[in-house]
Amino acid sequence: MAELAWLNGRLLPAAEVLIPATDRGFTLGDGLFETLRLQDGTVRDTPAHFARLAAGAKLLRLPLPFDAAAMGAILTETAAANHLRDGGLRLTLTRGPGPRGLPPPISPRPTVLVSAFAPPARAVEIAAIIATSIARDEASPLSRVKTLNYLPNILARLEAQERGAEEAILLNHAGRIAGASIGNILVRAGGIWLTPPVTEGALPGIRRARLLASGKVRQAPIDQDTLRRATSLCVCNVLALRPITALEGATLPAAPVDDLAGL
Amino acid sequence: MAELAWLNGRLLPAAEVLIPATDRGFTLGDGLFETLRLQDGTVRDTPAHFARLAAGAKLLRLPLPFDAAAMGAILTETAAANHLRDGGLRLTLTRGPGPRGLPPPISPRPTVLVSAFAPPARAVEIAAIIATSIARDEASPLSRVKTLNYLPNILARLEAQERGAEEAILLNHAGRIAGASIGNILVRAGGIWLTPPVTEGALPGIRRARLLASGKVRQAPIDQDTLRRATSLCVCNVLALRPITALEGATLPAAPVDDLAGL
Repeated sequence: MAELAWLNGRLLPAAEVLIPATDRGFTLGDGLFETLRLQDGTVRDTPAHFARLAAGAKLLRLPLPFDAAAMGAILTETAAANHLRDGGLRLTLTRGPGPRGLPPPISPRPTVLVSAFAPPARAVEIAAIIATSIARDEASPLSRVKTLNYLPNILARLEAQERGAEEAILLNHAGRIAGASIGNILVRAGGIWLTPPVTEGALPGIRRARLLASGKVRQAPIDQDTLRRATSLCVCNVLALRPITALEGATLPAAPVDDLAGL
Repeated sequence: MAELAWLNGRLLPAAEVLIPATDRGFTLGDGLFETLRLQDGTVRDTPAHFARLAAGAKLLRLPLPFDAAAMGAILTETAAANHLRDGGLRLTLTRGPGPRGLPPPISPRPTVLVSAFAPPARAVEIAAIIATSIARDEASPLSRVKTLNYLPNILARLEAQERGAEEAILLNHAGRIAGASIGNILVRAGGIWLTPPVTEGALPGIRRARLLASGKVRQAPIDQDTLRRATSLCVCNVLALRPITALEGATLPAAPVDDLAGL
């Protein structure tokens, strides 16, 4: 079965989906995305993902071409077309094609692309480093939304690879912990799980919100000392909750994440 | 005559150029670009543009699919195919298609796209504001190369539009001047032209380099007081040198830029 993707109202074989080279997503990174979890045939937390996307669109003055219900319908349609009941969906929203230059078109025609993918591999234990090549700019309003400007995270991840690790923890400009290249960080210290607040440069992750709502994780600024003294560390996003079992080469006990994994 | 663009070795009608939706330039902003000036049938400063692109590619660990001579040949071929002797060329280089996720493909197939355009409109006088919605992160190595992550500049430009101006001046995190949304800034103070050093968050612009080499412009950190007391202001890139005739609503004398315009 060929995988299908949804592009501006049409389902197409994913491998054949093409975007005009004038799309501002391609020329300027002018767009947003969401990665959603599909579980037992249901897209999880569509309202929360829609709210984050809407916050990003508001910041970018990008007209949203759907409401939450219509977005949910697009996601469900794409999952169903792929006969997929478990896995993930990525929704990309760009300002669409535009003439050369920065000023957005007066009447943009946003591009909406939804692709589906099989369940991620079972969470594996990973080694992490603290990135030194790049910091997260916690002062930027762009740090609070999920944009296509992913080069800081890519640079951090490249540094991790070069230093023999799978994940990079990003610091903010205050030298405290902001997050990881592919998700939020959870730090177990003093018998409780902590995660940095959004004001520290943390992305307002959807699974993070679930964990905070459960009361099992609390928000607090986390300095490097606390990170290094942590008894357990995890990286989480909607697709996986990954224990970090080595930080900067020092072994950590495998995190007891069973109480978090179901959230 | 249909405008032609060069995509990975082929000249195609520009309006029909399509990019795979899996291109990391589109999904993650994982790429770089250069805008070059075409003058009297010659592409200006190809070696300087190549050097900046190569610096960006090195930072992004992106293998360059050409050397300076081959890049020059591609640019010249695209200009010639468009029967264009004056105007501009944009070269976009991305990491090419990749699977979902941050880690770059082990053997990337970079995307190279070159498009041509007619000469920009004659430099017009513009009103500028000092952006308050976003700052330039001078600590980031990404501030020193020209990437596809253009949302900070787009946000600044949107703020300018909303405040009735055409251009936004970006501050760095120290509150000093970094540059403008579409180029470097020149500030005339104390009878000399100044422009911020790269360490302040200024992009190492190609025209900026020419102006510095001429001795007519000097590098210096520029605080907001100096900006507001400037007798003249300009924004420059390879396509235009634009006098700023109003800053935050206050009128400035039109800059005497004739001595700079030829550079």
